[in-house]
Amino acid sequence: MSSEDIKTKIESANKEAIQRVLTSKPFLVDVKPALQVLPGMKARSIFHAGPPIEWSRMCGPMKGAIVGTMIFEGWANSWEGAVKLIKDGEVELSPNHDHEAVGPMAGVISPSLPVMVVKNEKHANVNYARIVEQKIQFGEYDEKAVESLRFWSNVLAPAIAKALAKMQNEGSIGVDLKSIMARALYMGDELHNRPVAGTSIFALTILPYIVETTNDKEWLSQIVKYFGSNEIFFLCLAMAACKATMNSAKEIEYSTLVTVMARNGVEFGIKVSGLGSRWFTGPASMVRGSYFSGYGSQHANPDMGDSAITETTGVGAFALANSPAILSLVGGTAEDAFKYTRQMQQITMTLNDTFLIPILDFEGTATGIDIRKVVKTGILPVIDTAIAHKDPGIGMIGAGIVNPPAEVFKTALREFATKYKL
Amino acid sequence: MSSEDIKTKIESANKEAIQRVLTSKPFLVDVKPALQVLPGMKARSIFHAGPPIEWSRMCGPMKGAIVGTMIFEGWANSWEGAVKLIKDGEVELSPNHDHEAVGPMAGVISPSLPVMVVKNEKHANVNYARIVEQKIQFGEYDEKAVESLRFWSNVLAPAIAKALAKMQNEGSIGVDLKSIMARALYMGDELHNRPVAGTSIFALTILPYIVETTNDKEWLSQIVKYFGSNEIFFLCLAMAACKATMNSAKEIEYSTLVTVMARNGVEFGIKVSGLGSRWFTGPASMVRGSYFSGYGSQHANPDMGDSAITETTGVGAFALANSPAILSLVGGTAEDAFKYTRQMQQITMTLNDTFLIPILDFEGTATGIDIRKVVKTGILPVIDTAIAHKDPGIGMIGAGIVNPPAEVFKTALREFATKYKL
Repeated sequence: MSSEDIKTKIESANKEAIQRVLTSKPFLVDVKPALQVLPGMKARSIFHAGPPIEWSRMCGPMKGAIVGTMIFEGWANSWEGAVKLIKDGEVELSPNHDHEAVGPMAGVISPSLPVMVVKNEKHANVNYARIVEQKIQFGEYDEKAVESLRFWSNVLAPAIAKALAKMQNEGSIGVDLKSIMARALYMGDELHNRPVAGTSIFALTILPYIVETTNDKEWLSQIVKYFGSNEIFFLCLAMAACKATMNSAKEIEYSTLVTVMARNGVEFGIKVSGLGSRWFTGPASMVRGSYFSGYGSQHANPDMGDSAITETTGVGAFALANSPAILSLVGGTAEDAFKYTRQMQQITMTLNDTFLIPILDFEGTATGIDIRKVVKTGILPVIDTAIAHKDPGIGMIGAGIVNPPAEVFKTALREFATKYKL
Repeated sequence: MSSEDIKTKIESANKEAIQRVLTSKPFLVDVKPALQVLPGMKARSIFHAGPPIEWSRMCGPMKGAIVGTMIFEGWANSWEGAVKLIKDGEVELSPNHDHEAVGPMAGVISPSLPVMVVKNEKHANVNYARIVEQKIQFGEYDEKAVESLRFWSNVLAPAIAKALAKMQNEGSIGVDLKSIMARALYMGDELHNRPVAGTSIFALTILPYIVETTNDKEWLSQIVKYFGSNEIFFLCLAMAACKATMNSAKEIEYSTLVTVMARNGVEFGIKVSGLGSRWFTGPASMVRGSYFSGYGSQHANPDMGDSAITETTGVGAFALANSPAILSLVGGTAEDAFKYTRQMQQITMTLNDTFLIPILDFEGTATGIDIRKVVKTGILPVIDTAIAHKDPGIGMIGAGIVNPPAEVFKTALREFATKYKL
């Protein structure tokens, strides 16, 4: 093929890929234990954030999250007991993204943990996300941390599942996540570190059905209070919606679209539509962050989590101009926020037609990272993220802004050139 | 007194007045029928928005709202019956603002209509607001319109009252409205035409207590659905909080602070702290608006409602830079929004220390209109507002931007000069 022919093939593949992204319609349709729904999940599987990594090379907070989750599962009741099982080869570790799933920070999913089930109504793919909480995912593993997974598993997840069944009985597909995300962007969310409005819109959407299907008054009161005090809740639904959106554009031959950006706290990995299921990895960066009192960069773990699927889909830090309130958390000025948002247009394929930024006169967010544009311009995707302490058992210590290592895009582009004989 | 002495007195009075505004702490403490709480409310009183006006001079939508409210009260069952009672002198008409109250658009309050009871915990004054709905207040008066007042009176108001009692039993003062307003401003509200985030924060604050105190499951479900589908709800609480804030600074000798801006659909009226309870009025302006399909400026009633109490307190259009999403409703560009917000700093006393605008790097909103600055600069306060059809029975037809007539500030300043021998 001539180089012109190849170029035409790439343009056409990217047109198809970005069209799939823009037309995606992710709906929350169920909440179910991972073992029942996640492809490849077995009785002793643990799935985690980012690209593949063996136990010995894992960072502190991911080890903590895995131990906490094993205690939640009842496989062990101490750090030592859990580690022994892993070292004995009793537990199979694998990345969420290789099983149609995503999880925030350490992102650890185990068999009995209920996951959000999100169906892309337009393209028929189904994807999954782990709940967001403030402890286990940051590497805490004590009894109090484990308790937050129990509330989710025993109270909230079954209540949402019953509410969804009631909605579906009444003829609804489920909860329209894309519509909530679009509305939340009008309310100062960027949907990664700030999903506050998304949480309240989701809560007011699902609560009427939870009220009708939850008989225990004490539980009902706890659930309503939960939504009012866990502003970060919607992040896991935004992540699931973004994963269902990007997966509809995966593995399209000749496409240079980035479909995955994810970090395990040691390495940053991407996947590219035209390059199959292969990971391209490099060292995870340190986050340029603001720290909670008593903590600093010397305590920080490198960049971690599947939550960069939001930036991969054109929200998160790509919509930072929309969410100036977050600057009090991640640092920076309104001018920085505008700069990031505009800069991302140079490395993406299009402006989103649904995710709009009112303060930029309703311009769409920059959507669909093109590895060619990243390498050509040298501009790296921007991600806003939380920061975990590098040791297990401590938790979140700050938040900030981070970029992927440039080499993952360069390696992917070299591989692309080889594969397609550019 | 020398002119220097008078100037010192004015500065000192304004310092006291604006300090009272900034330190105000309005809490929702109860919801009660107007007759039980509103000073001066009698068995056949009707209170309305704006400055005083007799029936014969009232605009169409205010007449419609009064007739609808009289049908709700059971005093009449038709337009003709209601008008006959009024013409026979059976109904006493009086402005909300002269009875510690505010109401949106026509703002009509009648004896059995439950009102929000808001206490300013810092300065001890108690103020009241009428519920927001989409029909009666815009001049509709048919059975469906009246029904919305019945749901409020029979279901929602008693549920909120019981929930507040439960909160107070547990040691809380009530619902901290200032805190909700500050958070809502971080979520793209300007708290006049866009109180969407305020509604969701209020809902998630009060719902746990409503769940605990409302036994009827069908009602509970209706209430939860109501909050999810009536985004404008929080406006009446923002208005009550603003009224409680500005009333703590009323009638301070020598102060040039505007404490009331309100419109009855025919006239625009203001009150000034140093000039007692007197209204200064001029003709209400036409709104520069965007209209719903099928309507235009030829159908529009002039500016109407007590909701400009939000701008009087430094939110509403004074915080427009914060709420670019509203531009799709009222028209204009993000640049206009920034311009208005900055311009208002030239006619106000201070920047708010609690109501902040993240996109302006957390600058406070321009707060406390000074009649001297308005007259000197010729810059008029900016108000964003809904537009009612000029005929009764039709309702809302659009929204836009409007200014008060310049003469109200000039007349007030002349009166101020006379009173204080400037």
